[in-house]
Amino acid sequence: MTVTSVDVIDVRFPTSRSLDGSDAMNPDPDYSAAYVVLHTDDGGEGHGFTFTIGRGNDICCAAIETLSEHVIGTDVDGPAALADLYKRLTHDSQIRWLGPEKGVMHLAAAALVNAAWDLAARRAGLPLWKYLTTLTPEEIVACVDWRYLSDALTPEEALALLREGENGKAERLAEIEQDGYPAYTTSPGWLGYSDEKVVRLAREAVADGYRQIKLKVGADLEDDRRRFAAARAAVGPDIRIAVDANQRWDVDQAVEWTKALAEFDPWWIEEPTSPDDVLGHAAIRARLAPIKVATGEHVQNRIMFKQLLQAGSIDFLQMDAARVAGVNENLAILLLAKKFDIPVCPHAGGVGLCELVCHLSMFDYVSVSATMEDRVIEYVDHLHEHFLAPTVVKGGRYQAPTEPGFSAEMKRESLLQYAFPNGPEWRSN
Amino acid sequence: MTVTSVDVIDVRFPTSRSLDGSDAMNPDPDYSAAYVVLHTDDGGEGHGFTFTIGRGNDICCAAIETLSEHVIGTDVDGPAALADLYKRLTHDSQIRWLGPEKGVMHLAAAALVNAAWDLAARRAGLPLWKYLTTLTPEEIVACVDWRYLSDALTPEEALALLREGENGKAERLAEIEQDGYPAYTTSPGWLGYSDEKVVRLAREAVADGYRQIKLKVGADLEDDRRRFAAARAAVGPDIRIAVDANQRWDVDQAVEWTKALAEFDPWWIEEPTSPDDVLGHAAIRARLAPIKVATGEHVQNRIMFKQLLQAGSIDFLQMDAARVAGVNENLAILLLAKKFDIPVCPHAGGVGLCELVCHLSMFDYVSVSATMEDRVIEYVDHLHEHFLAPTVVKGGRYQAPTEPGFSAEMKRESLLQYAFPNGPEWRSN
Repeated sequence: MTVTSVDVIDVRFPTSRSLDGSDAMNPDPDYSAAYVVLHTDDGGEGHGFTFTIGRGNDICCAAIETLSEHVIGTDVDGPAALADLYKRLTHDSQIRWLGPEKGVMHLAAAALVNAAWDLAARRAGLPLWKYLTTLTPEEIVACVDWRYLSDALTPEEALALLREGENGKAERLAEIEQDGYPAYTTSPGWLGYSDEKVVRLAREAVADGYRQIKLKVGADLEDDRRRFAAARAAVGPDIRIAVDANQRWDVDQAVEWTKALAEFDPWWIEEPTSPDDVLGHAAIRARLAPIKVATGEHVQNRIMFKQLLQAGSIDFLQMDAARVAGVNENLAILLLAKKFDIPVCPHAGGVGLCELVCHLSMFDYVSVSATMEDRVIEYVDHLHEHFLAPTVVKGGRYQAPTEPGFSAEMKRESLLQYAFPNGPEWRSN
Repeated sequence: MTVTSVDVIDVRFPTSRSLDGSDAMNPDPDYSAAYVVLHTDDGGEGHGFTFTIGRGNDICCAAIETLSEHVIGTDVDGPAALADLYKRLTHDSQIRWLGPEKGVMHLAAAALVNAAWDLAARRAGLPLWKYLTTLTPEEIVACVDWRYLSDALTPEEALALLREGENGKAERLAEIEQDGYPAYTTSPGWLGYSDEKVVRLAREAVADGYRQIKLKVGADLEDDRRRFAAARAAVGPDIRIAVDANQRWDVDQAVEWTKALAEFDPWWIEEPTSPDDVLGHAAIRARLAPIKVATGEHVQNRIMFKQLLQAGSIDFLQMDAARVAGVNENLAILLLAKKFDIPVCPHAGGVGLCELVCHLSMFDYVSVSATMEDRVIEYVDHLHEHFLAPTVVKGGRYQAPTEPGFSAEMKRESLLQYAFPNGPEWRSN
C-alpha cells in the first residue's frame, strides 16, 4: 500500500474562447489543472489537482514533480500518515524558501495532499466527506499544522470544538445524505456576458431553485449599475445577489464603488482588494457595514485566514480546495472559522473545484459548524462533464457525493484530449 | 537596443557541506541562484538573479523561462520602459493566478526586473545606485505599481517625499562615495557553528570595524543563552547584537524566548514568527518593547510591507533585493518606509544579495531617507569571489560600487563550475 509512482499531467481547457470565467482581473482564463495520479504497489490510485487559469500550469506541474520525492515510498493510508506527508510537503527546508507556504509550491502541495486523501478515502470505501466524519476529534486535530496558529486557536480548543460537534452528528449526516447542501451560482454573472444573457441566466437560476446568484463587477461602474439593476429586476428582492470585484480596487475605491451599488442590495462584496490585505479588508468592512465582505479564493494559507478572522476583516470565509495545501490545511481553516463564528462559503468553479470543495463543507456541517445558516457553496456549471463523479446540484443544493474518494478523478479521454500542449484540442487550434 | 534572448542558468553552491547559513528553520541550505542574462540586439547584456537555498531553484528557472516572453522584443532602456516591463511581469492575467505577486513567480519576476535594471544602468554608464539618483522624482514615482497602496501612501505624497529628498542630495552622494554605508555581519552567528567559532568570529568582526553582529537563535533556549552570553562577553556592551529566529516561533513563544535572552541585550529580534503574520508581529512588538522587532527577508510584496508599517509591527524593515519583484517594488517599499519613518536595514548574504542590495540602500540615503541613523546593511562574507564586481566592505562599511550596472554579474567560470546538476562541482559529489 505504498506509493510507487506519481503521474503529472498538464490539462487545459480553452475557456477563454467563450469568455466563461471572465472578470475584472481575469479577462481570458483558460481553466486548467496540474493533475496528479498516485499509484500504489497494490494497484490503488489517488487523484488530485491544483487549479490554475492557463499559463504557468506547466510550472505547477514541475513543482509537483519536485515534491513527488516526498510521496514516493510513502504509505498514505490513514490520517496520521497523511499529516506526516502534508508536513513533509510544506516544510522541506530548502523548498520552503520559495514560499513559505504560498504560491506555486503551495499549489503543488495541494495537488499531492488532495490526491493522498483521495487514495485514503477510496481505501476506506467512503466519499471523502464521510471518511472525514469517521475520524476522531484527536485524529482531526493531529492533521493540522498548528505552527503560527496558537495566538488564535490551540489544539486543545480545537479538540473541544470537535467534541462539541459530536452531538447530533448522526442526524446531520443523514440530513446531508437526504438533502445535500445549499449552493449559489456564479454562472449568470461573468463580466464578458451581455445584459440579456445575464438576465436570462439569472431567471433560469431562480427557476432551478437557487436562492443566491453572483455578479462580477469592477471594470466599469456604469456597466455594473446597469447589469445589477437588470439582474435585480429579473430575480426580485428575495434572491440574494452577491458581487465580486476580483481584487480590482484599493480601499477607498472599494468603499465608494460598492456604495454606488448599494441601492441594488448586494449580499456581499467579494475580493474588494488584494487578498494579501488583511487590514485593507478590515477597513473596507468597517466602512461598508451592513454590506458584508467576503474573501478567500486567493488567500494563501491558514496564517492569512487567521488574521482575516482576528482583524474582523470578513463576514464570509471563502475556502478554496486547492489554493492552500489541500485537505489538511483546510481542516485548520474550518476550525478557525468555527472559533470565530464566521460562515464558510467556499469558492468553487474553475475546473473540478466544485467536485472537491463540497466534501469539505459537508464534513464541516456534520462535524464542525453544525449549521448551514448563511452557508452556501459556489457553483458554476461548466467542465463537470470531464469528471467520473461530477457534482450534482438539484433544486439549488449540492447532492452528497456517494462514490468513494474525493471526486477528483477526470475521465481518461478528457486528460488525453486537453493535455497541453500536445493534446488534440491544443494541436488543432 | 531590444532584448533578443534570455539565458537562464541554475547555479548552486554546496554550502550545506560546511553549515554556512544554518539556522533554526534552514538546517542545510545550498545557496543558489536562478540566474538570468538578457542579450540585446546591439550586444548589450543585463544580469540578474533570484536567490534560493537549493531544491526548487530549477522551478524558479522554469518560471523565468515562462516570463521571458514578456521581456523578449522589449527595449528596457529608461525608467518608463522598466516600469512597463515590471507591470507586464507581475500582471500577466493568467500567471497572476499563481500568486498573485508572491512565491516562485514573483521570485522569477525579481530576476528579470533586476537584470533589466542592470542593463539600463550599464547603458547609462553608472552603478545602479547612482543611476537611480539621476532619475527625477516623477520618474521614480512612475516606476511604482501603486495598486493597493493608496490607503497608506499616494503617488502625490511620494512625490513630495522625493522632492524633499532633493535637498542636500549632492552632499549625500559625495558622502556615500567617500565613506560608504554601515554594515553589520551575520558571519559569526550561524547555528551550526561551535561556541568557540562564534566567539572567535565575533571578536574578529569587532576588530574589522563592525559595530553590530547577529546570532541565530530558536532551536534550543539553553544553547542560545550560552552562545549569546559568550558572544556578549567577547564583544562587550557597546557592540549591538541582533538575534534572528528565522520564523521559528508562535507569538507567545516568541515573547517568552526573547525575554529569556533579554539580559544579554539583544538589539533586535528578527523573524520571530511567520513572515505572513502582520498581526502576530504587532503583538510580539508590543509585548517585547523596548526590544525591537525586525523582519522582511521573506515578506512577499509591497502589500505586506504596507501592513507591517500600518500595524506598527516592526522597528526595522529588512528589504530583500530579489524576494519582491526587484528594483521597482523595492522603490515602493523604500517610499513606504520613509512615510512611516522606519529604518530600512536590508537582508543580505546568500549568494549575491550583498552585491545587489547595497545599491538600494545607497540610493535610499541619497534620494529618500537622507539619514543613516540606525541603518545597517547585512553582510555575510561568503561567495563574493564568484562576482565580477564583488561587494567591498572596509572598516565595517559597504564601499560604494563604481562599476556600471547592478553588480549582479557572476564569473563565467563560476557559472560553469556550479551549474546544477551538470557542472563539475555537482557531478563529482
